[in-house]
Amino acid sequence: MKSMTLAQVAECTGGRVEGDDSLEVSALGTLQSAQPGQLSFLANPRYRQSLESTRATAVLCRPDMVAHNPVASIVVDDPYGAFADISHRFDTAPSPEPGIHPRALVADTAMLADNVSIGANAIIEAGAVLEDGVVVMANSVVGAGSRLGQGVRLWPNVTIYHGVVIGPRTTIHSGAVIGADGFGFAPAGAGWKKIAQVGGVRIGADVDIGAGTTIDRGAIEDTVIGDGVIIDNQVQIAHNVVIGDHTAIAGKAGIAGSARVGRNCVIAGAVGIAGHLDICDGVQIMAMSLVSRSINEPGVYASGQPVDQHANWRKNTVRIRQLDDLFRRVKRLEKCSQDNGDTER
Amino acid sequence: MKSMTLAQVAECTGGRVEGDDSLEVSALGTLQSAQPGQLSFLANPRYRQSLESTRATAVLCRPDMVAHNPVASIVVDDPYGAFADISHRFDTAPSPEPGIHPRALVADTAMLADNVSIGANAIIEAGAVLEDGVVVMANSVVGAGSRLGQGVRLWPNVTIYHGVVIGPRTTIHSGAVIGADGFGFAPAGAGWKKIAQVGGVRIGADVDIGAGTTIDRGAIEDTVIGDGVIIDNQVQIAHNVVIGDHTAIAGKAGIAGSARVGRNCVIAGAVGIAGHLDICDGVQIMAMSLVSRSINEPGVYASGQPVDQHANWRKNTVRIRQLDDLFRRVKRLEKCSQDNGDTER
Amino acid sequence: MKSMTLAQVAECTGGRVEGDDSLEVSALGTLQSAQPGQLSFLANPRYRQSLESTRATAVLCRPDMVAHNPVASIVVDDPYGAFADISHRFDTAPSPEPGIHPRALVADTAMLADNVSIGANAIIEAGAVLEDGVVVMANSVVGAGSRLGQGVRLWPNVTIYHGVVIGPRTTIHSGAVIGADGFGFAPAGAGWKKIAQVGGVRIGADVDIGAGTTIDRGAIEDTVIGDGVIIDNQVQIAHNVVIGDHTAIAGKAGIAGSARVGRNCVIAGAVGIAGHLDICDGVQIMAMSLVSRSINEPGVYASGQPVDQHANWRKNTVRIRQLDDLFRRVKRLEKCSQDNGDTER
Repeated sequence: MKSMTLAQVAECTGGRVEGDDSLEVSALGTLQSAQPGQLSFLANPRYRQSLESTRATAVLCRPDMVAHNPVASIVVDDPYGAFADISHRFDTAPSPEPGIHPRALVADTAMLADNVSIGANAIIEAGAVLEDGVVVMANSVVGAGSRLGQGVRLWPNVTIYHGVVIGPRTTIHSGAVIGADGFGFAPAGAGWKKIAQVGGVRIGADVDIGAGTTIDRGAIEDTVIGDGVIIDNQVQIAHNVVIGDHTAIAGKAGIAGSARVGRNCVIAGAVGIAGHLDICDGVQIMAMSLVSRSINEPGVYASGQPVDQHANWRKNTVRIRQLDDLFRRVKRLEKCSQDNGDTER
Repeated sequence: MKSMTLAQVAECTGGRVEGDDSLEVSALGTLQSAQPGQLSFLANPRYRQSLESTRATAVLCRPDMVAHNPVASIVVDDPYGAFADISHRFDTAPSPEPGIHPRALVADTAMLADNVSIGANAIIEAGAVLEDGVVVMANSVVGAGSRLGQGVRLWPNVTIYHGVVIGPRTTIHSGAVIGADGFGFAPAGAGWKKIAQVGGVRIGADVDIGAGTTIDRGAIEDTVIGDGVIIDNQVQIAHNVVIGDHTAIAGKAGIAGSARVGRNCVIAGAVGIAGHLDICDGVQIMAMSLVSRSINEPGVYASGQPVDQHANWRKNTVRIRQLDDLFRRVKRLEKCSQDNGDTER
Repeated sequence: MKSMTLAQVAECTGGRVEGDDSLEVSALGTLQSAQPGQLSFLANPRYRQSLESTRATAVLCRPDMVAHNPVASIVVDDPYGAFADISHRFDTAPSPEPGIHPRALVADTAMLADNVSIGANAIIEAGAVLEDGVVVMANSVVGAGSRLGQGVRLWPNVTIYHGVVIGPRTTIHSGAVIGADGFGFAPAGAGWKKIAQVGGVRIGADVDIGAGTTIDRGAIEDTVIGDGVIIDNQVQIAHNVVIGDHTAIAGKAGIAGSARVGRNCVIAGAVGIAGHLDICDGVQIMAMSLVSRSINEPGVYASGQPVDQHANWRKNTVRIRQLDDLFRRVKRLEKCSQDNGDTER
């Protein structure tokens, strides 16, 4: 376990220490459960009570919370961001040594920069390019002619098809599949004729792609993921989708073919976005909503229906199928009411 | 194919034979399609007709069904449970021999108990601990310092990250990823700052995890799956989720960060559960429902809307956006009606 | 890059050239972005404007579009189908050489026909059968006794369990898992008793299975996928499901246990189909819909609710829980209205 003095924590987070800056912390903890020797943070003043009873050695907090902090403070304006910065000092993830594992398979025509790390049974196909500091962990496959930018990290069991370009510092988690064929078929008699998917996938810099996520290659042109996009687990991104910079996509969302999502959007969990539509910048879609038309105005959108007790749900859900009829009935009543000279409204 | 006498079947299921207990069965079959030499079962009396015409050699059934059974009966109180017990005698799954495949890779610092079975190209990272009888099949990866309890079985192409603890007799199917980073990012200017996910994953005993399911590691503390939890395919469980013992989660369900699900819950297919909420013990959520608030009372909950013919659906679905307005209109009509001295109600 | 003359394109697509048939094309492009040397197509007359300004060298189009085409035409009746045919000539996917990679592992009892191609670290278990021209790419696993028909192609990191039968020319993309245990458990006291899943999976000819899709083995009998079925990414097909020929299933759809889907159905993205029901031939289900009852009439069905602005959504969504009550209130008003002798309607 690494260990840092509070002075070092303050330096790394651009904060200042209130208390003994020679104290040491060697791990992170939540306010509620942190032990002595651990560093915690308070981002949301609502949790002030947890601060007041914390057993952490030190807490990253805002100036106005210092008075409520029974232990040492590292005072910062953005405790959550400061916690994000410092968290990496305590990361427990393995840092693979540079070098090519004797059991890795690298094609003669692949081009590897210095300091790449290739794990056991990883496979780098012909013509692939791995820039400086790339990490490809065990059992991952990089397809022919694909290019991984500086510092790209593939966790184990990642599959990158041929003709995929990935920008610097992008991380892809296990089980993800980048560049599989888009779902492109032409009707043919009773059945279907496959259309070769000759486009590729272009992924920007500083992208994070979750476990089990799939991003298909384009039919003709590329599927494109912008810079700084963050994508959670089991997200499906179909062929020729374009995602703008810094957009966040939560787990189990699905985006159908040729949809264009703007910059700085937030797509919540299990959202479905239909194909061939546009979503402008700055749109937020709430969980389990269906987007079936283009959205041209920034803002928050939703359609998910929250649960009710089963008996109520059953009663009401059948009524939805009679809704249009009800509107007609009410219209008729309004007409009668007027004919009767009711002056209301 | 193994073969058992009905006497042996009765012994294994705690039942008694009505008929010739020396008859042999060598496979399982449904009542409708079973052939001579096969064993079937009747759990639900509704299917009595299938019983009356079955060609199976013997049927596991309740005492009151014996009279309707044209073939030998193994009489038990719980035919479905008895079938579950006996089914394993006819399992066709391979039982890997103990031993380490010459093409497996086991780190020097990994600790392997006796009778573990490690398949070809499987990788056991530094400091991992595999207890007695663990099976790690081909191309699976066990990350640094992770611990697999007695009899744990990983099918091929499973990925276990570092710092994951898995209880005895737990089974994990292909494509599953345990311990990938949770989706933790702090807003930073236009974009996002990644937060190192330093927690782990703790999975209990006798857990079953389906193909392609992902369970993320905790941000600070662990993600926790209780004992006897059963999880189907393509389920997403986010960081710091806690699942109580014996809860069942069907395919494609998604549970967002820090949600707590109680014991003995049943989460149906494609259900979405929002983050930072609590679901008490004994809650059942029906298919494709969205849980966006805590649930404090056991019972059945739903919000999924079943399909209608497209023409009707289109008519009614637009009306949902006018629903609040309709309520106002009806209120107005009620007021008029009262003003007119209608005495009804 | 391969290159073809327009004469060759016409021959391959059964069309005729309007223009210089000695011109060469070496890649595909969209009407909007095609460069000289590229071949494009116009399937939908709505995009005629793009045709009129295209820079492609030649365009596959219908006879009535030739007049609007500024460049050479390959005249065909079905441009989209013709494009599908020709697209494979320009495919960039690697074509693995026949042969067994020295780092592949093939069990002694596996039976391999001529011209099979087995990639690095691929594993073929005991008794598996690979017919002529089968391609198993890197890190894929074929379980004991499974059979891959002529020309089947498995991309990297595919997992085929034991006892799976796959028809000729079927393609399976990375991360897919075929034949994992169905979700079969019997209640047992507070918990669950696993039921061995002794059925297999039978997949027809010319099936296309997307990345990360899971198809479970049957509990007793087989799970069955018909001929010419096309399945997108991250689809979940549970045990004992039966899918009819030529049905299309889009990304993230889920089909629960023992459901039967007919022939020539189209299941859109993220649709959920409950277990133990029947859907007849020729049914189309729109995106994110829930099918909870059998469907016996061909046609289009839907239940997905499209997004609204959050403020409106919140107002209206709470009203759904009061809908049944509203119907009663309207009924009462109608009664009053009649008692008042209103003769309307």
